[in-house]
Amino acid sequence: MKRDVYLDDKPWQEALEEYIHYLTELDALKPGQAEMISTEDALARVTAEPIYASNSSPHYHASAMDGVAVRSLDTFGASETTPKQLKMGEQALMVDTGDPVPEGYDAVIMIEDVHFINEELIEIISAAAPWQHVRVIGEDVVSTEMILPANHLIRPVDIGGILAGGITRIAVHPRPRVAVMPTGTELVQPDNDNLKPGDIIEYNTRVLGSYIRQWGGQPFLWEITKDDYNLLKNQILKAADEADMVVINAGSSAGREDFTVDLIRELGKVLTHGVATKPGKPVILGEIKGKPVIGVPGYPVSAALCCQLFVKPLVYKKLGAVPPEQPTIKAAISRKLVTPLGVEEFVRVKLGRVNDKTIATPISRGAGVIMSMVRADGILRVPRNSEGYQAGDIVDIELMRPMEEVNETTVIIGSHDNTLDVLANFLRQQYPEAALSSAHVGSLGGLTALKRRETHCAGAHLLDEETGQYNISYIKRLLPDRDIILVNLVYREQGLIIAKGNPKNINNLSDLTKQGVSFVNRQRGAGTRILLDYKLKELGIGAKDIHGYQHEEYTHMSVAAAVAGGSADAGLGIKAAAKALDLDFIPVVEERYDLCIPAEYWDEPVIQRLLKVMALPDFQQQVKGLGGYDLRDCGKVMWQSGDKQ
Amino acid sequence: MKRDVYLDDKPWQEALEEYIHYLTELDALKPGQAEMISTEDALARVTAEPIYASNSSPHYHASAMDGVAVRSLDTFGASETTPKQLKMGEQALMVDTGDPVPEGYDAVIMIEDVHFINEELIEIISAAAPWQHVRVIGEDVVSTEMILPANHLIRPVDIGGILAGGITRIAVHPRPRVAVMPTGTELVQPDNDNLKPGDIIEYNTRVLGSYIRQWGGQPFLWEITKDDYNLLKNQILKAADEADMVVINAGSSAGREDFTVDLIRELGKVLTHGVATKPGKPVILGEIKGKPVIGVPGYPVSAALCCQLFVKPLVYKKLGAVPPEQPTIKAAISRKLVTPLGVEEFVRVKLGRVNDKTIATPISRGAGVIMSMVRADGILRVPRNSEGYQAGDIVDIELMRPMEEVNETTVIIGSHDNTLDVLANFLRQQYPEAALSSAHVGSLGGLTALKRRETHCAGAHLLDEETGQYNISYIKRLLPDRDIILVNLVYREQGLIIAKGNPKNINNLSDLTKQGVSFVNRQRGAGTRILLDYKLKELGIGAKDIHGYQHEEYTHMSVAAAVAGGSADAGLGIKAAAKALDLDFIPVVEERYDLCIPAEYWDEPVIQRLLKVMALPDFQQQVKGLGGYDLRDCGKVMWQSGDKQ
Repeated sequence: MKRDVYLDDKPWQEALEEYIHYLTELDALKPGQAEMISTEDALARVTAEPIYASNSSPHYHASAMDGVAVRSLDTFGASETTPKQLKMGEQALMVDTGDPVPEGYDAVIMIEDVHFINEELIEIISAAAPWQHVRVIGEDVVSTEMILPANHLIRPVDIGGILAGGITRIAVHPRPRVAVMPTGTELVQPDNDNLKPGDIIEYNTRVLGSYIRQWGGQPFLWEITKDDYNLLKNQILKAADEADMVVINAGSSAGREDFTVDLIRELGKVLTHGVATKPGKPVILGEIKGKPVIGVPGYPVSAALCCQLFVKPLVYKKLGAVPPEQPTIKAAISRKLVTPLGVEEFVRVKLGRVNDKTIATPISRGAGVIMSMVRADGILRVPRNSEGYQAGDIVDIELMRPMEEVNETTVIIGSHDNTLDVLANFLRQQYPEAALSSAHVGSLGGLTALKRRETHCAGAHLLDEETGQYNISYIKRLLPDRDIILVNLVYREQGLIIAKGNPKNINNLSDLTKQGVSFVNRQRGAGTRILLDYKLKELGIGAKDIHGYQHEEYTHMSVAAAVAGGSADAGLGIKAAAKALDLDFIPVVEERYDLCIPAEYWDEPVIQRLLKVMALPDFQQQVKGLGGYDLRDCGKVMWQSGDKQ
Repeated sequence: MKRDVYLDDKPWQEALEEYIHYLTELDALKPGQAEMISTEDALARVTAEPIYASNSSPHYHASAMDGVAVRSLDTFGASETTPKQLKMGEQALMVDTGDPVPEGYDAVIMIEDVHFINEELIEIISAAAPWQHVRVIGEDVVSTEMILPANHLIRPVDIGGILAGGITRIAVHPRPRVAVMPTGTELVQPDNDNLKPGDIIEYNTRVLGSYIRQWGGQPFLWEITKDDYNLLKNQILKAADEADMVVINAGSSAGREDFTVDLIRELGKVLTHGVATKPGKPVILGEIKGKPVIGVPGYPVSAALCCQLFVKPLVYKKLGAVPPEQPTIKAAISRKLVTPLGVEEFVRVKLGRVNDKTIATPISRGAGVIMSMVRADGILRVPRNSEGYQAGDIVDIELMRPMEEVNETTVIIGSHDNTLDVLANFLRQQYPEAALSSAHVGSLGGLTALKRRETHCAGAHLLDEETGQYNISYIKRLLPDRDIILVNLVYREQGLIIAKGNPKNINNLSDLTKQGVSFVNRQRGAGTRILLDYKLKELGIGAKDIHGYQHEEYTHMSVAAAVAGGSADAGLGIKAAAKALDLDFIPVVEERYDLCIPAEYWDEPVIQRLLKVMALPDFQQQVKGLGGYDLRDCGKVMWQSGDKQ
């Protein structure tokens, strides 16, 4: 039962440097045998040799203008007061742009500067300098000159330059061939219609393969190999024979069926097993038959990250090129972030441009959450010697989306509602340059974000127990100095989300106290949590009477997922979430969900676009289709700071 | 003979805005009918519809660790002082990462935290919180949630997110189909072995097509159409039928055979003919059969620029996406730049990072010089209301090469020598991250650039008539306050470059004064010009005795090209240039060509890499092969400021 569960803890930079040094000594990173390809097909390829022109361009003296070719000597002395006349056919010849300047002629006068007296005679009022408006031989490219050096990444204009020099076929480095091997008995292909518990959809190699393609490599996606030592051994040997580089996913950790490291050690050499990063720790950097073999962890975020840290530099080296640096921006971090000392953590963040400041908000840190990469706008690298940041600290963020898109993104922080997905999609459809970024931290969290000027607006459904009104008293209390406009988004049904068929026979909030009923709650500060506490107080039920009151989730959908998965019997949430996962729903109350918008942002496109989309009949129709929504006041201003009520 | 030679002069931004407005009204820029493709093939495509998850991920409660699954209730109270024992099989079950957490269990303890007493018993020293190390159903993706909105450009991680949500086929916008039509009787295909005067190699549509591909469009390159009104008319109609968009190159100006504008007017509508840009003025923005039809000028730089200004935004709109902004940097312009008022000029610049400052040096402004685009590191846009800049002004530069490459570029400004091409290529081959950028402004120009701190080193071969020494006295005079190290690159033969077979019977410098002999000179400040003047003085020959003394070129190769093309009978230059163009050569003198390197840059990689390359036997061998070079002192320090001589 004893297992070797401890991995190395090297800084990844050190591990990579050692690895590249080792591979370079083996000549494993030299570009392969050059390929001859057509110049026209050379976009984004890398030159394997310098390219020299085989002809000059132009290869004759060419007129640079539409006009008349002349001998400059014939024109000397011409001026406004002493115009000169030239005979067509003898002293002047019509030429168009690109025409050869006829033998013996050495200048061109622009058509605009020529006065045609008759068919045979022209008049000019200034002299032509020798070689004026003539593109002399080799003006652009001189035969034999170097057009491009080796190791040059070819852009569209380069194709023009190469063809201008008369070269129609060129030598380029071959695209590095990378075998990407999914391994694991639990893996199933994505088109599987019959997922069983324990099945994992194999998508990592599709992500890794897409990265490799993006970097100029040629990925070969292997079939899934089961966790069988000998099977895996044969496949790895085959891959090392066929490819320039092998990426194995996963089995890179130290679990019972993690064979990768032992296999690489048996077949070749392991240089590193484990680096000090989070996520991505259990990476293997090895070599078999003179080829790099990299074991990347199975968690999708770890896999994507390891691929970027270790596979990308190898692909580029093998391509004779240099990886472009990720564009980086400065941003203020919106909340305190604690990270482990001794480990470089890669934190995914959402970005928003609010009040001329870029705000970075950390999102899920789970290595298994691929959506954290999909939703992220950037990556914050927290160095090994740091324990994190205080809210407001200025940090460097590597962009995952273009900054101009971030600038056009409407940031909504606050309570979660499924309508926000629909809003995001309509916004993007109407305005391709726009986007919606929503972070779900509960209604009170949204107002706090407004206070810190981290968001353009907040979604809130905060019931004031005394007045029965929504949001106003909270805004007055939390944002006394700011001018806030309250716009309704929807009214929605909140109720108990329960399993299909209601097996535990739950009919109202009081049933939550029954023996054998477990509950899933929302986090503190969520409007739904406040609603629950208000209702429980009305009923005289205490928190400790409910099993699972401490079990907190952050969104309606995760509450519904908990019920659907059986980890809870009931949760309080919106009808749309129950409907989405085909669960039963017992209405408890209709509540109002508003957007709180600072007046100062009202006229900005990020807000105006939102309001226009909310007014679209198609948008409202689709929201109604989600179930449990009423849009009678959608887009209506309900209140503004300074109003009486 | 009367022609309509005057075009519009609209600001391009205004012309584009009008054009997009007009096309949008016609629905001409809406993405086409969506295509269903495999998610795996979706890299860099754009979603046509929002993508909703069809399953949750994970779709079961999964262990997040290798360890043992437990019931959290069984673990309560465990601590270092009161460890708890659990029975394997009854209270604890081995699970690997990704395994389903068995029915009734609700937490996982990491393998590292488990003490295995024997096969049947484990001991733990801390309690497990409910759902600890469990990835609950939907932790990553909840069934029915939106994974991506419409109009989203798909990145590698997005492919993972979509597959995790169970979606294997998605709807994407089709790539816009763009017909690119080369027109002109003078055009010949690039593989032509028998170029005649007046033939122009057709490469523009290959450049335009590559841009369109880069932007996500699908270019269709048409065959060359001759300048025949009816032929062209048929082809344009055919293209407008088959494609989403038509780009015609060229015939967009107002010359005798420029039919494009008349044809578009006849077949549809012309919105703009001529914009206030330089280059790129004679562009046509039109429409035929509800499709955008754009006439771009024939000069390659104009064509590339017009395509970026007008075709790019249409391709992106039709793709449902937004063009990424070109990355921009600040740079100091190295010399005075005068530009015409009323026209937005796009000036190509070389960039260099010298002394922690980025320096932009304008290069050729000819619209016909495609190599000015190949060699450029960036574009400086000079606004219409500006007349240019003073040296040292800080300007915005749009990058054409990644900045990290610019940072690693060795900048050499000064005299031209063919060896620099060989040096550039070897440098890049040895160090893929490195590059050499050389600007040819003559030896004195190089020393001036050193003085202004615009270059890492200068190439010079300045003969002191009094001492017979090279460079030292000039450095002392021009750079008295700087510590300069003089390193020899080569000795080379300078002599008369003359036509093959020497038809004018030129045998020495005195023969330049003969009747019927024309000369091509180098520009003032060039070492070769100084050498010529020195030799002419020795011989008692005056400048006005030589026909063509005023005809100036900037490089040895352009002098050789002038002789090869017959615009001059002789020029003074290096043997390598004569040899390259298969011309005759009469040696006049051997001279020394040095690199002048400020001591402060000596230890920097940009200089050290250069010195290492100069020491390579392969490099020296290849230079010798050019002819007329002696490398006996290559890489040797000849002198340093403060030395006696």
